[in-house]
Amino acid sequence: MTPSAYDDQNIFAKILRGELPSHKVYEDDQTIAIMDIMPRGDGHVLVIPKAPSRNILDIPQADLNATMATVQKLARTLVEVFDADGCTVQQFSETAGGQMVFHTHVHVIPRFDGVPLRPHSGEMADGDVLAAHAEKIRAALA
Amino acid sequence: MTPSAYDDQNIFAKILRGELPSHKVYEDDQTIAIMDIMPRGDGHVLVIPKAPSRNILDIPQADLNATMATVQKLARTLVEVFDADGCTVQQFSETAGGQMVFHTHVHVIPRFDGVPLRPHSGEMADGDVLAAHAEKIRAALA
Repeated sequence: MTPSAYDDQNIFAKILRGELPSHKVYEDDQTIAIMDIMPRGDGHVLVIPKAPSRNILDIPQADLNATMATVQKLARTLVEVFDADGCTVQQFSETAGGQMVFHTHVHVIPRFDGVPLRPHSGEMADGDVLAAHAEKIRAALA
Repeated sequence: MTPSAYDDQNIFAKILRGELPSHKVYEDDQTIAIMDIMPRGDGHVLVIPKAPSRNILDIPQADLNATMATVQKLARTLVEVFDADGCTVQQFSETAGGQMVFHTHVHVIPRFDGVPLRPHSGEMADGDVLAAHAEKIRAALA
């Protein structure tokens, strides 16, 4: 595989620069967490390092550590807020790996007994529902 | 969700104690990596911290960092060794989240354009194939 360069016109770079809106639930010096607008389950959040990197193949270790600290914080919070039975964490690298936006991000999805992940339909979630979920998560993290 | 206690009779604890065999491809002070015996793709590896923890909900941050450093090392190595087009990383917490062995582990799966993940059939891979893949990975890491 020939590594591709980071392209700062990806949508997460635009969200990080404030050029696109998001339902942000968390922010610290090195990371943000936002609602996934095509959630595979209620409460599906994306953790995004602020520094540019494409995926796990090129992310500097300090950024990876910061990202995973936020992943853990969100995993614990989502399980609590949604009264979930578990949690699924996924990180996709390159198109073959399932990646669609080429800025490193980690999926954190609260899970419920007997409820499979929703298929990746490409359908956007209702904005009011996402806003309500985001508000619950922010309140729990505050 | 009521957190469950760590049970040291899980199979990864037994592998870490040398009570069960594995196709080990990597080891450092804090982690090991072994071939998944029910691979969802060729070269599917599990990264396992040596210290006991159940999953991302309870793992200490230092162990999580060490685990992710090994995940990154393996992701890069698997893409190179298998000439893959990408990589998928997954971490499952509790049964609802997809977890079957209750010692923290992270799946690292090299991916190829147009090749979906194999279903989780519960079928064991051929031992000779796993041994050959393990040998290729060890050689690349050496």
